[in-house]
Amino acid sequence: MDREAYSGKLFIISGPSGAGKGTICKRLIEETNVELSVSMTTRSPRPGEEEGKSYFFTTMEDFQKEIEAGGLLEYASVYGNYYGTPKQKVVEKLRAGTDIVLEIDIQGALNVKEVYPQGIFIFILPPSMAELRKRITGRGSESEDAINLRLSQTLKEVSYIDKYDYCVVNGDLDEAVARVKAIVMAEHSRVSQSIYQLIEKYKEEV
Amino acid sequence: MDREAYSGKLFIISGPSGAGKGTICKRLIEETNVELSVSMTTRSPRPGEEEGKSYFFTTMEDFQKEIEAGGLLEYASVYGNYYGTPKQKVVEKLRAGTDIVLEIDIQGALNVKEVYPQGIFIFILPPSMAELRKRITGRGSESEDAINLRLSQTLKEVSYIDKYDYCVVNGDLDEAVARVKAIVMAEHSRVSQSIYQLIEKYKEEV
Repeated sequence: MDREAYSGKLFIISGPSGAGKGTICKRLIEETNVELSVSMTTRSPRPGEEEGKSYFFTTMEDFQKEIEAGGLLEYASVYGNYYGTPKQKVVEKLRAGTDIVLEIDIQGALNVKEVYPQGIFIFILPPSMAELRKRITGRGSESEDAINLRLSQTLKEVSYIDKYDYCVVNGDLDEAVARVKAIVMAEHSRVSQSIYQLIEKYKEEV
Repeated sequence: MDREAYSGKLFIISGPSGAGKGTICKRLIEETNVELSVSMTTRSPRPGEEEGKSYFFTTMEDFQKEIEAGGLLEYASVYGNYYGTPKQKVVEKLRAGTDIVLEIDIQGALNVKEVYPQGIFIFILPPSMAELRKRITGRGSESEDAINLRLSQTLKEVSYIDKYDYCVVNGDLDEAVARVKAIVMAEHSRVSQSIYQLIEKYKEEV
């Protein structure tokens, strides 16, 4: 991805499963102008899903071509279907001044960082491992062993936090959402290209 | 100043005269837990001024000693009196977890940056030079020539903006205050020492 300064910003919200990144993203999209990135997938559309809104639907062959052409910010295979983030679609939005949020696991976020280091990387943390255990246990779908494995996996994932710009502890959801919204607002106040344009305008005025 | 990571943060709010940094600082102090740094001065206390609250009052001799000992984050002489920011007092607050804001001109801010680069430097900009001219003219205390001189001075000052972390255009005051508050909140979500402490706690829990 080129280093052109876009007026829109790419926020990557990431973190271990159970930390609540999905809920935070949903609130962010509902309460601000930030838009969710639309993924590309090889799976078939489900009833009610719209092309370009829910997903960009594509064939396995075309998805493979996208991978080879470097057209994806990141991608993953889930149950035999591919899911990925089309770079060009994201760039179009950013160039038009729209903020985009990507909700993604840690490995995916690290891949995005390789190709788009100027993204803003936010790590969502659970308030404690005890609380995370409670949240996962609450879902009731996993055995004790599976939960223990998940928690030690979480510890490994958390060690990548120094690759991130921000971390938000999701104890109280409202507070966590407020923090993410503050990050979005603050990042738009960074000294950047647009300020130099304002300063050029000052010069013409004096 | 040592590189110990304090839980409180030092915010430096700076910008040309007339940009509105004073009003923004006042609102920030009223509406958040951020505290204003108390300056040290050689001028005499005025009625109602309290030692350690309005200022730390001191003699010319002791102020000189502070300068020589490197005990000031920055200082300036105004109408024959010295004003400065006592480093030790700021560090005590930061260590105790209190955020401190310094409202200061550009030269002062650059001096603070030399000794405390981990401070968060915010530049307040007027929305346009025309608006700045209007604001200064509105005060009615300066001649046309003096105002023109001030505006070209402002242009020079603005060229230091790349030494700052953030810039906030003060067109609408409420919006500018909201932006500065967002910066304060976001900076407390930076990946930092305190997060590594939380992660150590996670490890004990698993």
